Amino acid sequence: MSDRVEFRDLTDPEMARETIAGLDLGGGTETVPLTEARGRVLAERVDATIDVPGFDRASMDGYAVSARETFGAGETDPVTLEIGGEVHAGEPPDVEVRDGTAVEISTGAVMPQGADAVVPVERTSPEGDRVAVRTAVTPGENVMLAGADIAAGERALGPGTELTAREIGLLAALGVASVPVRSKPRVGIVSTGEELVRPGEELDHAAGQIYDVNTHTVAAGVEAAGGEPVTYPHAGDDLDELESVLRTAAEECDLVLSSGSTSASTVDVIYRVVEDLGELLLHGVAVKPGRPMLVGRFESAAYVGLPGYPVSALTIFRTFVAPAIRETAGLPEPTTATATGEMAVRERYEEGRLRYVPVGLVTDGDGRTLVYPVDKGSGATTSLTAADGVVAMAPDVSELAAGEPVEVELFSPSVRAPSLLGVGEDDPALSRLLDRVDRPRYLADGSRVGRRWLEDGISDVAVLAGPIDPPEEAVEIGSWAREWGLVVPRDPAESDGLESLLDGELSFVNRPGDSGLRATFDDALEELEAERETSRGELARAITGYERTARAHESPARMVARGDADAGLGLRVSADRLGLGFVSLGHETVRVVAKPDRADKSGAQQLADALENSDVFGSLAGYERSDS
Amino acid sequence: MSDRVEFRDLTDPEMARETIAGLDLGGGTETVPLTEARGRVLAERVDATIDVPGFDRASMDGYAVSARETFGAGETDPVTLEIGGEVHAGEPPDVEVRDGTAVEISTGAVMPQGADAVVPVERTSPEGDRVAVRTAVTPGENVMLAGADIAAGERALGPGTELTAREIGLLAALGVASVPVRSKPRVGIVSTGEELVRPGEELDHAAGQIYDVNTHTVAAGVEAAGGEPVTYPHAGDDLDELESVLRTAAEECDLVLSSGSTSASTVDVIYRVVEDLGELLLHGVAVKPGRPMLVGRFESAAYVGLPGYPVSALTIFRTFVAPAIRETAGLPEPTTATATGEMAVRERYEEGRLRYVPVGLVTDGDGRTLVYPVDKGSGATTSLTAADGVVAMAPDVSELAAGEPVEVELFSPSVRAPSLLGVGEDDPALSRLLDRVDRPRYLADGSRVGRRWLEDGISDVAVLAGPIDPPEEAVEIGSWAREWGLVVPRDPAESDGLESLLDGELSFVNRPGDSGLRATFDDALEELEAERETSRGELARAITGYERTARAHESPARMVARGDADAGLGLRVSADRLGLGFVSLGHETVRVVAKPDRADKSGAQQLADALENSDVFGSLAGYERSDS
Repeated sequence: MSDRVEFRDLTDPEMARETIAGLDLGGGTETVPLTEARGRVLAERVDATIDVPGFDRASMDGYAVSARETFGAGETDPVTLEIGGEVHAGEPPDVEVRDGTAVEISTGAVMPQGADAVVPVERTSPEGDRVAVRTAVTPGENVMLAGADIAAGERALGPGTELTAREIGLLAALGVASVPVRSKPRVGIVSTGEELVRPGEELDHAAGQIYDVNTHTVAAGVEAAGGEPVTYPHAGDDLDELESVLRTAAEECDLVLSSGSTSASTVDVIYRVVEDLGELLLHGVAVKPGRPMLVGRFESAAYVGLPGYPVSALTIFRTFVAPAIRETAGLPEPTTATATGEMAVRERYEEGRLRYVPVGLVTDGDGRTLVYPVDKGSGATTSLTAADGVVAMAPDVSELAAGEPVEVELFSPSVRAPSLLGVGEDDPALSRLLDRVDRPRYLADGSRVGRRWLEDGISDVAVLAGPIDPPEEAVEIGSWAREWGLVVPRDPAESDGLESLLDGELSFVNRPGDSGLRATFDDALEELEAERETSRGELARAITGYERTARAHESPARMVARGDADAGLGLRVSADRLGLGFVSLGHETVRVVAKPDRADKSGAQQLADALENSDVFGSLAGYERSDS
Repeated sequence: MSDRVEFRDLTDPEMARETIAGLDLGGGTETVPLTEARGRVLAERVDATIDVPGFDRASMDGYAVSARETFGAGETDPVTLEIGGEVHAGEPPDVEVRDGTAVEISTGAVMPQGADAVVPVERTSPEGDRVAVRTAVTPGENVMLAGADIAAGERALGPGTELTAREIGLLAALGVASVPVRSKPRVGIVSTGEELVRPGEELDHAAGQIYDVNTHTVAAGVEAAGGEPVTYPHAGDDLDELESVLRTAAEECDLVLSSGSTSASTVDVIYRVVEDLGELLLHGVAVKPGRPMLVGRFESAAYVGLPGYPVSALTIFRTFVAPAIRETAGLPEPTTATATGEMAVRERYEEGRLRYVPVGLVTDGDGRTLVYPVDKGSGATTSLTAADGVVAMAPDVSELAAGEPVEVELFSPSVRAPSLLGVGEDDPALSRLLDRVDRPRYLADGSRVGRRWLEDGISDVAVLAGPIDPPEEAVEIGSWAREWGLVVPRDPAESDGLESLLDGELSFVNRPGDSGLRATFDDALEELEAERETSRGELARAITGYERTARAHESPARMVARGDADAGLGLRVSADRLGLGFVSLGHETVRVVAKPDRADKSGAQQLADALENSDVFGSLAGYERSDS
């Protein structure tokens, strides 16, 4: 293991930002059809080359007249003129307005010779081939003169203007069919790592393969920042191939981003290619996440090496790289997207580096925003969606106290706190019920964790299974029963699962200690104490694999399906779904309970409605709605 | 002229909104590749079908050990283990951890059999084929267990989730290569009006043709709201064709929007087709702009008829139609984009209808936001870009007083007041200087208007030409001189332009009364009074076309170029640019002056810098930088 990857002199984040801002990311111009111009940024000033309108134009339906003929006209004292003809929009006038005449005219039509005003049709009365004009008009009234909107030679739009529907409208009015816009910087994305597989392909778990996340998140981020992502195939374990991919990307793109493996050999290749083709400007930035961050320059492209973990890669991309892409694309920095709130719990960090803490938001009963850290562990991809933004902790701040006000940098201006924050048991009926709630967030971390979050005043609702009782003050929103037991192979070797389990003959998979189902199972063991004249502890020790746990409701069943275990603690619904055998051990209740002052939140209400009206329980084997 | 187009029973705007919200705009599902999923909305819940990670995974570089072997180890009291081999990310372990051994492991690698924790490399020291472990680790430390991130069977994302980089990351981690998303509603856009021509094609001004604006603004608006715009060719003057286009659109789309001509015959056809194929739900809404607004239903599509004027069409689209498209596409309403400010001037409106007043924003010297109405007249397309949003005036409000606080609904959340609001003379050097200013707004309404806006405390700077003096307190930012005179044909019939002009032998085009150049010309006539023993009025009357004015600096020259006039008041630069003859009558000064408390605004500073450093004067014929 080389120590080449240890970065001892970490660069100050501000300096890293400046270095990246100083990189040349291209910045050319291209011409696009007006129909594809939305969201692009004008590269040059556009002056009008025609008058709009190009002719003196009637702006109302009525009669084109010479204004002086109407002087003195009024409701009781109309002036009567001969109707000399008519002019419609889109046709050249074939009449003139002579003394004593008026010409019928429609909105948008060319004013005929001799006319300088339009009398609105409402202020006239037809009288055979004559018209009574009941109002006086002044020259120019109800007429838009040629060029009055914008005249040839006038400045229409300046360089740097972002083209929305409105600017596109003005360009259309000027007859501009294609527009010079700033080119989107081409951003090459190279994910390194032998373990990466493209989504859609087969994974070999045993070989430690995982799906490539960064290529997709970074590409989406590049697109959102106004760049054009160019993804390259994974270089895999072939260092020559990595070198060749990097060289190609450096030639084809304005900016090359790599992410993934920080293995010594990979980093060596990257160092070599960057130094061969250009210059390494800095390596290692004093920020967490994101330590192994490289910045360099190729001949005609810039280079930034992102960290490998998805949350880290995206955070560093958003904070350091996206602003440079937007700048090149000419797009404005997005409107400040921040929320202020109070820390719901204490957060400590003492490494003396700038740290971006991913956080979630929740609105409490008084409408205040609470902020809680999201830490699913390094490399967790679910942190991507479980967080709403980040709180920056300065290098000299080692603690954020509970209740301390903090500013959250939201992931986008449209991020809001979820309508409902629930924590608790993992349950397939609940998954379906949540589909009826608009923007919920549910953390399936187990009933015990759910109870704790509710007690701590963070979450809105807890979902508690089996013997995990709700806190005293909680109000129940609804409940159901689910059949639990042992999930066993389709044709189990032993007919009585529990007996064999207690005899230690089966290899078992349990659920984690925070799970309500696990608590139900433990209670069942306790009931056997008397019958078997032993303690629960003894019974547990007799079970091969009692300590072996798997995270989610379906996980033990899947291990049985794969042949990795003989029996798993689980639900009838999982056994049915996976076509496995099932030894029923009973029913347990799952309760949804709310903090009283949060029960009225829209998400809680929607969940209550869903509970009352959904047919989800009928469609899941072993499920029953509870009477309540 | 039929009175069919007069709508006597106008619908309440709230009811119109509800009617449109109640229309069925499709709402299907389609599957898109993950790489094209950004910005789309998930149509169904996505549950994990694999464990992430799929194996127990080292989350640090170091040594995989059995935790109990490290118990008691410390900095001064290391435990030494035999190195049993190594495991790298992306490869299946070919070693096991046995008693007394450790296996070198890299981040992301599969934990070998027998190991349950990783000792970070920093807390170890290699000693030949052995390693000294200087810290104790607990089971599970620095390991991410299979499924710990998300386990098969768990709810990953709910229906209705908008897919950003973060959700795309989670989907990639789950190996999802294509996602079910809500279909974009197909929105057909039919512009009617015989006068409409597609941008890029030739206009026949004499026939009253104009470029089609609404097709482009509405298509861009549809796209921004998450719909798929489908544009249809203009129906032109053929009513059968209009009928056929409407019928096609009704079949192919989920929503059909028409806009443009409200001529009786066109409206008749629309009525007939809507009633033939479905039902007209309402016609005419009590809102300005937007009176002739129709809402109807075809068999499998909805229909909304927008007003013809671009600003009106876009306002009605944004206010009434876009929310329904977003709702169908599953996109959230954009974050409230409002600004509060004070009316800079009084605004009156007494028709007793809800009115959306287009307004511009400007920040005054104290950082307050001032709001001024933008009214360039019905049908002006420049109002699209001169305004920043709208102020809703309730039907019972007839006046907004100057200084009254108002809430502005911004056109988008990213709209901000321009960095500089300038009003005054139209000048080609100024156009170029403004290119150096970030987000300026300039209204080329003439020097006299510029002076007035500055005096009224609305604008930041005024650009004043010729004898129009700045208000007393104004500070000068810079000035230049421009050569003016008569623009005449390349080979004029008479050599001395001014003589012939005063003899009435030439047909002349003047500039409007608000123009500084016009004031300079009038002053020149005054100087001739003595010489010619006559009054300025007499001299003016002697000029054929003295009262005939054209809007912009280049307009009279263009009329000369077209043969519509013999001589135009203009600048040498225009004559040169258009290849025309020029009779110089002198130089006039153009001054940029600022309100003293606005001279520090970033836009004013940038303009001052541009004035000082630009080479624009050298590149324009007849221009000279003034000494100041």
